[in-house]
Amino acid sequence: MQTNATKIYKLIGAEAVLTEAEDLRKYLTGFSSSYGYVLSDANGTVFYTDSRYVEGASAFLKDTDICVKQFTGSIEELLKGYKEVAVPLGRTLYCDYEKLNSAGLKIVDSLPAFTQAMSVKQSYELDLIEKACKIADDAFTSLKGKIKEGMSENEVAALLEYEMRKFGASGTSFDTIVAFGKNSSVPHHETGLSKLKFGDVVLIDFGCKFKGYCSDCTRTMLFGDDKKHNEFKEAYLKVLEAHMLAKDKITCNMSGAEADAIARNCLKKHGLDKYFTHSLGHGIGINIHEFPRLSPKSSDTLLNDMVFSDEPGVYFEGEYGIRIEDTVTLKDGRVLSLTDSDKKLTIL
Amino acid sequence: MQTNATKIYKLIGAEAVLTEAEDLRKYLTGFSSSYGYVLSDANGTVFYTDSRYVEGASAFLKDTDICVKQFTGSIEELLKGYKEVAVPLGRTLYCDYEKLNSAGLKIVDSLPAFTQAMSVKQSYELDLIEKACKIADDAFTSLKGKIKEGMSENEVAALLEYEMRKFGASGTSFDTIVAFGKNSSVPHHETGLSKLKFGDVVLIDFGCKFKGYCSDCTRTMLFGDDKKHNEFKEAYLKVLEAHMLAKDKITCNMSGAEADAIARNCLKKHGLDKYFTHSLGHGIGINIHEFPRLSPKSSDTLLNDMVFSDEPGVYFEGEYGIRIEDTVTLKDGRVLSLTDSDKKLTIL
Repeated sequence: MQTNATKIYKLIGAEAVLTEAEDLRKYLTGFSSSYGYVLSDANGTVFYTDSRYVEGASAFLKDTDICVKQFTGSIEELLKGYKEVAVPLGRTLYCDYEKLNSAGLKIVDSLPAFTQAMSVKQSYELDLIEKACKIADDAFTSLKGKIKEGMSENEVAALLEYEMRKFGASGTSFDTIVAFGKNSSVPHHETGLSKLKFGDVVLIDFGCKFKGYCSDCTRTMLFGDDKKHNEFKEAYLKVLEAHMLAKDKITCNMSGAEADAIARNCLKKHGLDKYFTHSLGHGIGINIHEFPRLSPKSSDTLLNDMVFSDEPGVYFEGEYGIRIEDTVTLKDGRVLSLTDSDKKLTIL
Repeated sequence: MQTNATKIYKLIGAEAVLTEAEDLRKYLTGFSSSYGYVLSDANGTVFYTDSRYVEGASAFLKDTDICVKQFTGSIEELLKGYKEVAVPLGRTLYCDYEKLNSAGLKIVDSLPAFTQAMSVKQSYELDLIEKACKIADDAFTSLKGKIKEGMSENEVAALLEYEMRKFGASGTSFDTIVAFGKNSSVPHHETGLSKLKFGDVVLIDFGCKFKGYCSDCTRTMLFGDDKKHNEFKEAYLKVLEAHMLAKDKITCNMSGAEADAIARNCLKKHGLDKYFTHSLGHGIGINIHEFPRLSPKSSDTLLNDMVFSDEPGVYFEGEYGIRIEDTVTLKDGRVLSLTDSDKKLTIL
């Protein structure tokens, strides 16, 4: 079976392509590991790793075009005899660059090829992301009935993570954010010991991994309706309008800035754009944040089979915050939502 | 209150100290964030971060010697006017180094100061690690009664992670490893869908975070005794002997290689050293792997108040593996175990 290692090697066209970064290695081999080098040249691809992974990697890659070797030596040893090597320059440490440089190697940047190739998902990758999204949806639906007064943010996060694991996730794609009450006004609140009270806003930003691929989703709800939330409810509808408008209007070949502007202009119409303090979205794949960016300054081009988040939000310091986020993909030029649990305002 | 930022600045003695890496920023500020720069000079320390963290960081740091500013600009802007800057060279990307270099700055390496300072824990850090270890112990004890035949590795991992969260952890310190049967022979097995059968070896390698500090622990057990495990039981006792001997003999001022040799020679005496395919241990703190290394080639010196793992293991390919690991510290020249759940062979 041909792996992405061969595809990337051909795309770059350098004498040798050397890859150390964990996510890029995972992309090339499909195998998850915390140590190793992937080296491709005209003769093929070798995955060099240590004793912890040799047995697992050999079994995983036995029917592919990658062979596995045990190795704990230096980059210089690996690259002996080559004149030119491609490495991901924007991800390469200064000290590693210096080693290649002093070995007299011509250095080519492999990162643009990775960024572009990884952003447009292959069908097996879309299947894995879809599965990670389905797990997140199912876990969230199951969680909603279990949230009770007096539970801590930590407990709710624990329950949600347990549900995701039970539905088949290998772990979370980032630290689950659970924010009660005014904690929701901090976009990246650190989940803690605050206890849930009647009338609290409940913001949950969560995602899981399935075979190394991420999902990302946010829902904002109310825990009981103490009838003091008219402003919140109005703002909720406007954030939802911005979220849905982005889904409706984002198309293929649009720039990240144009996509961001759809939601931002909608909130501006309602006088809420100054509370929308982050960008509309980010690419999702092996990494929870990757290419493309959907932000006011982004010139990234959105293409079919890219996967990214649609996550407008508004934050009123010291009061509350609202964010509504789905992981979506572009299919035949239209947005298709991959996470898709109910977005009508839920009163728990 | 004086933070570590001031201590590290004085230790390095450069005109300015600029820190971007997430773990080093956490060490300097105590605050967890995914974006930011900490810049110290003779006038004090500023934590530059984006809109997502400004509110949280300002509240967290209000009584300290660090002030918080919103910033999303370039390194060059931050360093305008300086002649010399210290950055962690071994953690600095080539492209960032080039920016500093072309700005005409003299570059000093801050990493040795961080490595040394972070390895010897302060008492508040020891308290946090101790708490992370206690949570791991309590969660594991609670888990043991809940493991049932037919459960998947994923389900057991989910249950354990839920218990750790419930006992107060903010998350795991690495992807929990649960390996049933022959999966245990792969030191870093990827937890999956294998189901637990009577007579299986059960290896669980797990840890949690408490306020940003890690714990790390491994236990190997049997799920029921099908009386076919005499070899396993003998090997278990030998690994436990090596584990306990290391705890007994490791002292202050010993090198990492001398510490490793205590366990390795013990396994050698029993003819098992060739199955001990990794090193004895690694430092633990904000990161799950940090200074010092306890390995055959390590010249790192072990000092009081360092925290590291003691984890001998043996792996018989395709059959089973055994690893027994505790997080420990050196106190008054003696090893003190911080994780400490029962290490006698448990038959579940």
